[in-house]
Amino acid sequence: MKFWLNLISGAFFTPALWAAPAPLNQELAYRLVESLTVEVGPRIAGSEADRRAVQWAVTNLRQLGYDKVWTEEFEMPGWTRGQAKLDVVSPFAQPFVLTSLGGSVGTPVDGITAAVVMFDSIEALEKADSAAVKGKIVFINKPMTKDKSGSFYGQVVAARSRGAVEAAKLGAVAIVIRSVGTSNNRFAHTGTMKYDETITKIPAVAISVPDAQNLAKMLKLSPKVELKLQMDNQLQKASSHNVIAEITGTEKPDEIVLISGHLDSWDQGTGALDDGAGVALAMATGALIKQKATPKRTIRVVLYGNEEGGLLGARAYAAKHHNELAKHVLAAESDFGAGPIWQIESRFGDKALPFAKELQQKLAHLNIALGGNTTYGGPDVSVLAQAGVPVVALSQDGTDYFDYHHTPNDTLDKIDPDSLKQNLQAWLIMTETVANSSVNLRH
Amino acid sequence: MKFWLNLISGAFFTPALWAAPAPLNQELAYRLVESLTVEVGPRIAGSEADRRAVQWAVTNLRQLGYDKVWTEEFEMPGWTRGQAKLDVVSPFAQPFVLTSLGGSVGTPVDGITAAVVMFDSIEALEKADSAAVKGKIVFINKPMTKDKSGSFYGQVVAARSRGAVEAAKLGAVAIVIRSVGTSNNRFAHTGTMKYDETITKIPAVAISVPDAQNLAKMLKLSPKVELKLQMDNQLQKASSHNVIAEITGTEKPDEIVLISGHLDSWDQGTGALDDGAGVALAMATGALIKQKATPKRTIRVVLYGNEEGGLLGARAYAAKHHNELAKHVLAAESDFGAGPIWQIESRFGDKALPFAKELQQKLAHLNIALGGNTTYGGPDVSVLAQAGVPVVALSQDGTDYFDYHHTPNDTLDKIDPDSLKQNLQAWLIMTETVANSSVNLRH
Repeated sequence: MKFWLNLISGAFFTPALWAAPAPLNQELAYRLVESLTVEVGPRIAGSEADRRAVQWAVTNLRQLGYDKVWTEEFEMPGWTRGQAKLDVVSPFAQPFVLTSLGGSVGTPVDGITAAVVMFDSIEALEKADSAAVKGKIVFINKPMTKDKSGSFYGQVVAARSRGAVEAAKLGAVAIVIRSVGTSNNRFAHTGTMKYDETITKIPAVAISVPDAQNLAKMLKLSPKVELKLQMDNQLQKASSHNVIAEITGTEKPDEIVLISGHLDSWDQGTGALDDGAGVALAMATGALIKQKATPKRTIRVVLYGNEEGGLLGARAYAAKHHNELAKHVLAAESDFGAGPIWQIESRFGDKALPFAKELQQKLAHLNIALGGNTTYGGPDVSVLAQAGVPVVALSQDGTDYFDYHHTPNDTLDKIDPDSLKQNLQAWLIMTETVANSSVNLRH
Repeated sequence: MKFWLNLISGAFFTPALWAAPAPLNQELAYRLVESLTVEVGPRIAGSEADRRAVQWAVTNLRQLGYDKVWTEEFEMPGWTRGQAKLDVVSPFAQPFVLTSLGGSVGTPVDGITAAVVMFDSIEALEKADSAAVKGKIVFINKPMTKDKSGSFYGQVVAARSRGAVEAAKLGAVAIVIRSVGTSNNRFAHTGTMKYDETITKIPAVAISVPDAQNLAKMLKLSPKVELKLQMDNQLQKASSHNVIAEITGTEKPDEIVLISGHLDSWDQGTGALDDGAGVALAMATGALIKQKATPKRTIRVVLYGNEEGGLLGARAYAAKHHNELAKHVLAAESDFGAGPIWQIESRFGDKALPFAKELQQKLAHLNIALGGNTTYGGPDVSVLAQAGVPVVALSQDGTDYFDYHHTPNDTLDKIDPDSLKQNLQAWLIMTETVANSSVNLRH
């Protein structure tokens, strides 16, 4: 009990029943993500479940043999999802499957009822005349295409992140977007959205792809489709934690090889793909390397808090460890599901490019090719990359990732254990190689 | 307005905006199911949406050129789904995706909190000692296997239909079943359940397959898993309607070839596969045959009300038309989604078996084989088959049917328009052949 009180400033944790430690073998990453999703489940940043996830991570990292395990608290805006309901009022009364976007305000208790105006994209909305939008609910109906690297996400996600601001500028009373996802399954994809403090804050939700198709068909049949939205989210101050663990290097303990994932998840699924898999891979990698032999450099596992709310844990880490960043030899993150790794990308200094090739050659038997030298390494470590830390990305095949991402359907059964084993092998090779070398990867 | 008041006794309908009539071509079935799912959507029997569906059907059948269109009201127990919430309380607090089973009672306002006891099947539950069940929530975790004909449904569905009775007999306070479905998508499958008036009525819900897997894993880790169920369903008296339309035969107008589907759907999806497709096929078949030439026998389209609650419309039809059943030459129904038809099955008198072969030969170019002579023809027409009416089944490939059936995911996008065209061709050939023959299909 004392342990918890000491470790996590200001927080008090009830000891939970956690499963027995997972054995240190090639199943380890799967066992860890299984444990996290079963024993903790969804863990939105700032929630009681998030605190249990931190407790779970600390306990497991200690059991896995890490030399040091600690947490770093940071303040953040908290957001709690309430009930949400979206109905077609007329002419074709029926309910839609929706989800609030993360951070959205709620509606008045009686809801908001208004006619819909549809746009194909946020760019089309931005060009619209306010007379066409004022007093209406904006609907952005932009589909997303699948590919291995998820490259279409960036084109579609703007409607989610800044749609509410653009719609409100033109006088809209709410915004409904087609889910930023690639599946026709009737799930709505959540994800963070932002307000501009100078623009009226309007509620923002996503509807599932079948509902978006349905609404578009309604708008073809009828000049006026009225929707009613009721939603009661809560905003409050909160805090979360980064969880950090180290295998202390034998020869150069101050040189840090940082491997990471993010511990928080959206509240709809159990956060298996996003990012239980990444958390499990980072945790397993350090433990299995230590089991074999403690490396020369320090391996630091960082499990970021609140990635989903906008990389808040990553920013807190970068701020707190500012003076130490020059000693970060490399940073890497797994946060794109659990598909097979097919490519290694880097962001190294030119002189270190042969080392990227060397890494790839060690990974070639896992069917991993050499990619370019322009990666930012993943959402959280992009903050470190911007601060000059060299990064590597072990790029997963994400063809199906956006079928599940940010929906209730992100559950353990969507992870292929064999694929996760391949991931773990690649992480072990990459991390061990860097941690036992004296290479300088900087510009 | 007068039209509606006359047609449907005791009911008053507001005229709705329906889309323009669908053109009489091979797209007709798809256009009709599209119209039903977009313009009406979910339509649980006895609801306001059910009444709109009846209105939609009457309007469309008239527009399609049927000679007679009418409705037949019947009384039934009504059921309204309220809110439902199922949470793991301890030791691994997290929410589950659930759905109430149709007809289930609710819980007290504060919910029911109890430990879980898991069984592999209803048969295992039936053999259990009441000491192991008393005061607990029973969890039946039986998976369902996929196949073309959905033959595993019957093995699994008993947990849904009579699980609450068997669990209550042993003193359980609620029952949770693994969804009767074949998909790992995180949807819970609803469906009707029954009580025994002599046994305590306990609430009955289904959880999604991933949640069932999760709960089973929790039970491996912990000797005691507590759940809390809160649910506020309502039971009330209600009525629904069968919608009936005829193309009157030129030579033998009193001889009836009955083709059918059911108009009601569960409230979670938009009822595209179950059974918008069947409704659309029956409606399109009569209309397209008449467009070509009015047949010798009468083609009667029956769109049953309340199939989902236990074939209530079908029983009402059989009772009301009791004296006319001897003149029902044939009855057939489409109620297994919209997959390609691969087989024709019959339930004819022995002397009529060559006619089954003759039908199959006319369907052979659509890749339809000849099946056996033991079919009951489909859920609703099984009531007629039991009363001696010859039946035919145009069997669809239902491999994926139970991925969507009774879930929120039963939406229009799950129908392949080309497959529905193949279905329509088969229905046209079969129906036209029987309606223009003088064959006697009885024993």
